[in-house]
Amino acid sequence: MGFWKSIFRVFGTTEPTKKNRLRPVPNQNGQIFFSTDRDIDVYELEELCDAVGWSRRPIRKVRKAIQHSFIVISMWEKRGTYSRLIGFARATSDHAFNATLWDVVVHPEYQGKGLGKALMKETIKSLRQADISNISLFADAHVVEFYRQLGFSPDPEGIKGMFWYPP
Amino acid sequence: MGFWKSIFRVFGTTEPTKKNRLRPVPNQNGQIFFSTDRDIDVYELEELCDAVGWSRRPIRKVRKAIQHSFIVISMWEKRGTYSRLIGFARATSDHAFNATLWDVVVHPEYQGKGLGKALMKETIKSLRQADISNISLFADAHVVEFYRQLGFSPDPEGIKGMFWYPP
Repeated sequence: MGFWKSIFRVFGTTEPTKKNRLRPVPNQNGQIFFSTDRDIDVYELEELCDAVGWSRRPIRKVRKAIQHSFIVISMWEKRGTYSRLIGFARATSDHAFNATLWDVVVHPEYQGKGLGKALMKETIKSLRQADISNISLFADAHVVEFYRQLGFSPDPEGIKGMFWYPP
Repeated sequence: MGFWKSIFRVFGTTEPTKKNRLRPVPNQNGQIFFSTDRDIDVYELEELCDAVGWSRRPIRKVRKAIQHSFIVISMWEKRGTYSRLIGFARATSDHAFNATLWDVVVHPEYQGKGLGKALMKETIKSLRQADISNISLFADAHVVEFYRQLGFSPDPEGIKGMFWYPP
């Protein structure tokens, strides 16, 4: 149900709705769309995460995380009547000062085409529109350069990203 | 109103309530209490942040940030009938996987007594009780060692904390 409902919300109208801020992006394959609808099919999302080698997570927790994220951005390719989830990003936030990005992913078949950049620009734009000025993330070593090109600074003024592990 | 209401909730009962998880901690000055009540006096909080040299923030936004934080932990010293806000921490979260700490502060007069450590342990305990396993933060260079001693790792597996600034 979730899948079809989600697809309907994204592609069921010929005119982009303001709510979902749909905007087609030129692409050599098909048409690329962005959606901020959080009623996303979590199985399809986990399949996408699987494709980039992330470990599987309990569906119930993924659903809860999406529900409690400040923004959720999904990227879709539409070919005829079929549409496919090809990218995703979400952010937690205090709705006032900061937002932190999580689960930024682009399907391997769609990498290297500028779509990750487009997804991030869409995400930053959404956060700026929500008056968030402090956008942060934790980048794996091999994507630090990708984020740097988008305007992200590693360790600005000596600030260190740190993670807690049980002692 | 907020201040007295908050104080009442923290100290108005002789028995600690489960909701606020009050727990007195031995201290040479007075009794130290922790509260998870988010109905905190934001002016007193900003005074505390002021004492450690942080720049002032719009009260309206501070209130909104507290309201949308996943947990809010305040630390109080009680001397007789008077109580004083001496520490604070809050975390944003997706309520499922991760939490990120913000605004961790201990009043300068109360630093170096193990109270920052106590505040952090209380915060981590709360997050663990909420089944959050991924706890992160962005540490200023001079407090990296403090957090390391509490079990936080800087840049684990090469992961970099990054911040976005407008180009």
